Amino acid sequence: MKKHSIILYIVGILLIFESAFLILPLIVSLIYRDGNWMWYLITMGICVVLGFPLTRIKPGKNLSLKEGYIIVALCWVVLSLVGALPFVFSRDIPLYIDALFETVSGFTTTGASVLSDVEVMSRSGLFWRSFMHWIGGMGVFMFMMAVLPMLGTSDMNLMKAESTGPSVERIVPHVRDSARLMYGMYFGITIAEIISLLITGTDLFTSLVLTFGCVGTGGFGILNSSCGDYTVAQQTVLSFFMAASGINYTFYFLMLSGKTKDAFRIEEVKYYIGIIVTSTIVIALNIKGIYGDIFHAIHHSFFQVCSIITTTGFSTVDFDMWPELSRTILIILMMIGGCSGSTAGGIKVYRIVLLMKQFKNELSVLKHPREVRLLRMDGGTVKEPVMRSTNVFISIYFVIFFISLLLISVENYDFTTGFTAVAATINNIGPGLSMVGPTCNYGFFSDFSKIILIFDMLAGRLELFPMLLFFSMLGPRRK
Amino acid sequence: MKKHSIILYIVGILLIFESAFLILPLIVSLIYRDGNWMWYLITMGICVVLGFPLTRIKPGKNLSLKEGYIIVALCWVVLSLVGALPFVFSRDIPLYIDALFETVSGFTTTGASVLSDVEVMSRSGLFWRSFMHWIGGMGVFMFMMAVLPMLGTSDMNLMKAESTGPSVERIVPHVRDSARLMYGMYFGITIAEIISLLITGTDLFTSLVLTFGCVGTGGFGILNSSCGDYTVAQQTVLSFFMAASGINYTFYFLMLSGKTKDAFRIEEVKYYIGIIVTSTIVIALNIKGIYGDIFHAIHHSFFQVCSIITTTGFSTVDFDMWPELSRTILIILMMIGGCSGSTAGGIKVYRIVLLMKQFKNELSVLKHPREVRLLRMDGGTVKEPVMRSTNVFISIYFVIFFISLLLISVENYDFTTGFTAVAATINNIGPGLSMVGPTCNYGFFSDFSKIILIFDMLAGRLELFPMLLFFSMLGPRRK
Repeated sequence: MKKHSIILYIVGILLIFESAFLILPLIVSLIYRDGNWMWYLITMGICVVLGFPLTRIKPGKNLSLKEGYIIVALCWVVLSLVGALPFVFSRDIPLYIDALFETVSGFTTTGASVLSDVEVMSRSGLFWRSFMHWIGGMGVFMFMMAVLPMLGTSDMNLMKAESTGPSVERIVPHVRDSARLMYGMYFGITIAEIISLLITGTDLFTSLVLTFGCVGTGGFGILNSSCGDYTVAQQTVLSFFMAASGINYTFYFLMLSGKTKDAFRIEEVKYYIGIIVTSTIVIALNIKGIYGDIFHAIHHSFFQVCSIITTTGFSTVDFDMWPELSRTILIILMMIGGCSGSTAGGIKVYRIVLLMKQFKNELSVLKHPREVRLLRMDGGTVKEPVMRSTNVFISIYFVIFFISLLLISVENYDFTTGFTAVAATINNIGPGLSMVGPTCNYGFFSDFSKIILIFDMLAGRLELFPMLLFFSMLGPRRK
Repeated sequence: MKKHSIILYIVGILLIFESAFLILPLIVSLIYRDGNWMWYLITMGICVVLGFPLTRIKPGKNLSLKEGYIIVALCWVVLSLVGALPFVFSRDIPLYIDALFETVSGFTTTGASVLSDVEVMSRSGLFWRSFMHWIGGMGVFMFMMAVLPMLGTSDMNLMKAESTGPSVERIVPHVRDSARLMYGMYFGITIAEIISLLITGTDLFTSLVLTFGCVGTGGFGILNSSCGDYTVAQQTVLSFFMAASGINYTFYFLMLSGKTKDAFRIEEVKYYIGIIVTSTIVIALNIKGIYGDIFHAIHHSFFQVCSIITTTGFSTVDFDMWPELSRTILIILMMIGGCSGSTAGGIKVYRIVLLMKQFKNELSVLKHPREVRLLRMDGGTVKEPVMRSTNVFISIYFVIFFISLLLISVENYDFTTGFTAVAATINNIGPGLSMVGPTCNYGFFSDFSKIILIFDMLAGRLELFPMLLFFSMLGPRRK
């Protein structure tokens, strides 16, 4: 019984927070007079009515890792279920399942849309859609821990469940201080990008929503052309801020602490930059013919590479029309994803680097059986549990991947559509190729497939385990 | 220097064996008077001239696992390089790279062909092509160990390098006895299938080549329609023998020893049968509309499921035309593959079952942190190194998979073609989908792509490590 009360208590807190987040789209609605303010107010009311009684329960003590996972999974589900309501009320997205898909896509920073025409959406709807990216990017619990003293004392396990990458380290000793610092840097990057966009002549509303989609690595745009109609300057600002958002935040912390050398010594960041540079060059050479000159080729290549590897999903051109080599590179980048400890999705560069090192190690054990070799990363030894969990992660990743692909394939669309739809949702990217390419949307899928993809988005954002544990708890209990 | 002498000595022995294998197509050529006997004789001469001097070197002692891997990789390469010669000499396949592709495809029991019309090939060429499947199926080293007393005393490591599955166990204490027993059972199944096919009215030549392709899980046919023109009885015989060839040979050993109960207790075999039955039913329901009645649907579904999961690659119909669900199931079966300790390719059911158990274990550790859970398989505990090597295997598998896909994609064919071409070669199946579907061939690929796919076939057959180690040894040396 005690366990349940902690869970319910935290759900209560979360709902109160959600009602606070909803103030922003409400204000936008009032400014643009799109008539939707009432729906946000009603949703806020629902949040408070449901949430307030729950917060009256006296919570228990610290959470175990398991409880952390369950709570995080449950809260992300509740957050999305409620967050979808304004879209339905305002008729921006009349069907609830579509609204839920869009909302999960928002909070998980996927950016996959069911809408064929986003330009008809209300201003407040567009704002809420993108603002969800910003909330989900750094994580709603991270925010709660940063703000609430009660939660932020020792609940490392909540942080673990919501953060990205195989090993979460507090950059400073206290969880709450870490959370505050993370959000501080997140705010900093957000402000920097808004200012940069304003300088390029972007209006405030566009600057805000693009920035939310960019620093949260989400990818919802407000034009049907995604980012294709913006100027080269605007696109370049977005490219760099996307790339920056996929970097491990420890990098910025070290930079801010004056440890520039240490910052550039983080192996994951070096590989991340290496992958971006290499992919940009190879794709640019591959698509040169399409864009006439190498400058345009590099510009579009860089934008798309940054967008896909950080799992943002903005696009300046229809990369589904690119040659197969470029498309395949993008598909592989989709799976790699950004750095651990960033807002990006995917398997994460850290895990890929670990796997490569493990592989080199196994070969070298075969070559020199008597040598003992330890896996080293950033100067330290990688501990056995980290390696094991990385291996389990990869296996589960592909298991979920192929089961989802199988379930989606019932609908009989082509292989590329199914494969990239799953890849684009489980890695929280947004657009895939073929029928889910950058000029298309996910609206044509059946409700059943949408539910599969909703699961994939959540599983991807929470790095598989919380969602699996959550659903395994819903099943029959055994002692 | 000593190491080199063992390696060269074994290559010498291998070449002598290859010249012995070549006697069979030579005899076929004489019977059918296709005028190619001379080319087999010349190739035999080349084998002896190259091989005999090498066998004069006094070999050293036992091999390490590393040396076992290197020798096996080197020998499979040499075997293929020489085995391709008769095709070029006889103009059956005039280009050497194509002949090499066909030969590697033969020895690795892949069954992927570069030929658009196999029916114009000489009888001896068809026979050699299929006979390679039979040699490669159980493994050429296994054969050498079974026959040569010198090699068969303690070279467990050669057996390890060539056998399938994560943990090779001698079914009887001595390596040589194990090898003899394995080949004994292999012969037994071969004879049983030849007789079964003769009973259905198949002529002897067809019975022989189909049996070689079937028990070796290879898949080269002698008609352009693969197995589409055979009678339902013939196809059904093939289905069952394909399914039987994908089963762990320990199963047959236990059956022969009268331990029927123990045989059916092997978990891998139970899952293997379960996967075949489930896939057959689901696909049959999915394709019922195409074939009119459920009987034909089950017949074709069962044949294709057995063909793909055992990585044989025969086909009775063009399954590339099937709905996406069936196609996706087949793609997943391609990756799963048959049982360990069988002649089938793929990841192997054993590894998949281990991964699923590991995953269940990790979830249960999260749920009940204080419980210690051991991974159990067939009543025993799975040891840490087996689990680690399985995880490494899966990671390397996908790394090789995606690097190959990337290199193939340079040619700008569609994603399904590239994806299934790599899947069909690394898993030693043969046909894929789209441009490499069952009615197509691999002839259109560039030499570069063919070399990549040749590597994939060898890496797949030898379960990744030998080939990787072999190529890493070719690189610059370091102390």
